[in-house]
Amino acid sequence: MSHRLGRMSKPTKVLLDESRIPRAWYNIAADLPAPAPPPLHPGTRLPVGADDLAPLFPASLIAQEMSSERYIAIPDDVVDVYRLWRPTPLVRARRLERALGTPARIYYKYEGGSPSGSHKPNTAVPQAYYNAQEGTRKLTTETGAGQWGSALAFACAQYDMECEVWMVRASYDQKPYRRSLMGVYGATVHASPSQVTEAGRGVLAAEPDSSGSLGIAISEAVEVAAASPDTRYALGSVLSHVLLHQTVIGEEAIEQLAVLGETPDLIVGCAGGGSNFAGLSFPFLREKLAGRMDPVVRAVEPAACPSLTRGTYAYDFGDTAGFTPLLKMHTLGHGFIPDPIHAGGLRYHGMSPLLSHMYELGMFEAVAKDQTECFEAGVRFARAEGIVPAPEPTHALAEVVAEALRCKESGEPKVILTALCGHGHFDLAAYDRYLRGEMQDFAIPQERLDAALAALPAV
Amino acid sequence: MSHRLGRMSKPTKVLLDESRIPRAWYNIAADLPAPAPPPLHPGTRLPVGADDLAPLFPASLIAQEMSSERYIAIPDDVVDVYRLWRPTPLVRARRLERALGTPARIYYKYEGGSPSGSHKPNTAVPQAYYNAQEGTRKLTTETGAGQWGSALAFACAQYDMECEVWMVRASYDQKPYRRSLMGVYGATVHASPSQVTEAGRGVLAAEPDSSGSLGIAISEAVEVAAASPDTRYALGSVLSHVLLHQTVIGEEAIEQLAVLGETPDLIVGCAGGGSNFAGLSFPFLREKLAGRMDPVVRAVEPAACPSLTRGTYAYDFGDTAGFTPLLKMHTLGHGFIPDPIHAGGLRYHGMSPLLSHMYELGMFEAVAKDQTECFEAGVRFARAEGIVPAPEPTHALAEVVAEALRCKESGEPKVILTALCGHGHFDLAAYDRYLRGEMQDFAIPQERLDAALAALPAV
Repeated sequence: MSHRLGRMSKPTKVLLDESRIPRAWYNIAADLPAPAPPPLHPGTRLPVGADDLAPLFPASLIAQEMSSERYIAIPDDVVDVYRLWRPTPLVRARRLERALGTPARIYYKYEGGSPSGSHKPNTAVPQAYYNAQEGTRKLTTETGAGQWGSALAFACAQYDMECEVWMVRASYDQKPYRRSLMGVYGATVHASPSQVTEAGRGVLAAEPDSSGSLGIAISEAVEVAAASPDTRYALGSVLSHVLLHQTVIGEEAIEQLAVLGETPDLIVGCAGGGSNFAGLSFPFLREKLAGRMDPVVRAVEPAACPSLTRGTYAYDFGDTAGFTPLLKMHTLGHGFIPDPIHAGGLRYHGMSPLLSHMYELGMFEAVAKDQTECFEAGVRFARAEGIVPAPEPTHALAEVVAEALRCKESGEPKVILTALCGHGHFDLAAYDRYLRGEMQDFAIPQERLDAALAALPAV
Repeated sequence: MSHRLGRMSKPTKVLLDESRIPRAWYNIAADLPAPAPPPLHPGTRLPVGADDLAPLFPASLIAQEMSSERYIAIPDDVVDVYRLWRPTPLVRARRLERALGTPARIYYKYEGGSPSGSHKPNTAVPQAYYNAQEGTRKLTTETGAGQWGSALAFACAQYDMECEVWMVRASYDQKPYRRSLMGVYGATVHASPSQVTEAGRGVLAAEPDSSGSLGIAISEAVEVAAASPDTRYALGSVLSHVLLHQTVIGEEAIEQLAVLGETPDLIVGCAGGGSNFAGLSFPFLREKLAGRMDPVVRAVEPAACPSLTRGTYAYDFGDTAGFTPLLKMHTLGHGFIPDPIHAGGLRYHGMSPLLSHMYELGMFEAVAKDQTECFEAGVRFARAEGIVPAPEPTHALAEVVAEALRCKESGEPKVILTALCGHGHFDLAAYDRYLRGEMQDFAIPQERLDAALAALPAV
């Protein structure tokens, strides 16, 4: 019809046809000069083997965790679910650029259009798929604010599997909407500590009003999974197979930037356990290692939980209670309880062992941000681009804004790419606090870090 | 790269490049055999003229309201904002089809990816644009649950205009997240009745604990707009220019179905004021009038607010208090207070005058649904397709499911198209009630309708 424009010369967003969903995950382990140090058994202090993990994870995921193959094919059935929301859009933030008056070109890869509103279904779906293939009838997991729990609940619904989630009591009471979302997808949700497990009952006996912790919730989910042969456990970040599944983000972004003829000068992602940051950056790091591009890659963590910028690279437990294998990672100490910032997804004492190893190799940079600066960037972004970001990616956006303003000073037209890993529709109470001027930042005195790090296990 | 599939033969969704954003709105008034009866001045009972509306609306919107031009060009600057989320995806609900075991092919046009999460920005943006063009500095409006208010708040932020919203007190207190969303976009939000207006103060003097109503909130917003020359008022549904702006939905859907070589047998949309239903169906009705396709078009309204299926076609006030022009429409009577169903966007006593006129002409059908059937369809949809629908479009989905099951009986492979006009992220408390078995349906005794209709104004 005549009332349409022809192809515009400067598109705002690049959408790919679903035939362009990546058909393989990229395993960066294949391209590292040395492998990451292995996890150690908490008892023997010897490297953990596949047999040790078998009660909790299906064989195919254990194989992926330990694989050094460069590409791992994505099963057709997983692609078929990815199709509901993938490929995700790559958007040029023209209105934000204009509001900042920067010569930088800012691109964001938006994962908030997924069923549960974040990047988490990218790994929840294959984890559910492989479990279903190997006869698992039920998956258990823990969740804090509920991003991971809702993604796994959705994924289990695709394979007619049960899903049982232990949600930290404080969040269960204060953030009922993500709990409701898990219920819509058919999951059973317990407030943790619960009466359902020995671990939970133990905590409640000692402290009937316990508001719970991620560490306790992990213990409950693992206990139930380990006790039944057709029940297994799923984790939403930190482990290498989780990071692997997220590489669809970066693979698509490479193709989308190529459509525009752009090459990133800077890639910025927020990092808690590390899966979102890895998902965006690993495929670009492959290109960098191959000499095809040369972006600076930068992780942004909360100043209240600065594992890369102020932690130690050492073996530590993955959970607070000390039940998990020992992981060589940048850690604040497994006893470190981060202050209650709103970016619940970044409140983890350690960093993914794979990313920690790569940080030691100098493959990326890290900076830390206070949350008020992050929410300021989040509001700025929402007013310009429409999308209200989750608190986690506001960390990346704060750094994007800072870099764009540096470009304004220097006149450099840098190409900046970031991952907008989720929307903030369930986090508006935090925005409210920010807008009312009631949001607090948290400084960590060095003595507090020293005390937490003094309790690292001897290896 | 070799790890990708070629173009798949049966895509799940059709995405259009942003160059395919429609460049004109379709004005169905041009193709009707007779014009809709005009609005009447509440005092004189004579047709309302442009001058009567000038204190509230800019001249360009008044011209659109009264236009009989078939196409009205969309300004480039509006297209530039549409680009943030348009064209929206057309998705085939393969997983829902499979879950139902139906031979029907079900397509949904998804508007929930817009900044405020519904179809409302399609009209909020042009309304803000034309106001900005004509020197308006501030827009006022009312909002119930907040869908419309948040869309207008976003739109005003694009044109550096102030936005002042009167939100019904009951929602203001019970649904704080949409209020927060308006705050993120920079709007000022008052609980209505407020102390800011004479209308609000009057209500509060008589009833200090008033929980408000849409009618009171309209009076407050209109009072403030009428009192200041650079302040105007904006409405989110019912009026013809609002329906006009929504036709981008149907225009895109026509193009997307053409990509697949599909022609709809049935088009289903939920209808409150009517803007979403009109936005999807008008362009298809144009094609039907021209003999290029022959879909059945069906509106779905709540059984608790059945203006089309149980109302009367008569002149009535648009608001509860009786301040607005008289509109010829299907109405339950302006004094009818719908029971508190969760689909707040469908709780309106009247239907758009343009749609009412077309209903009288036999151009579409209407059915009514109870909310528990709607939420059942919503949960079914969410588990299959991932997206949690807002309560309003669950009405359309309930009819889609019913039709798909009729197709299962008959073996007919009908092509069904619906508009999924928004996500339910701010409505999860309602899903919770449904899942706990605490959701109620409301029957309306005929005497209650008769009493409300007895109070229609004499014309």
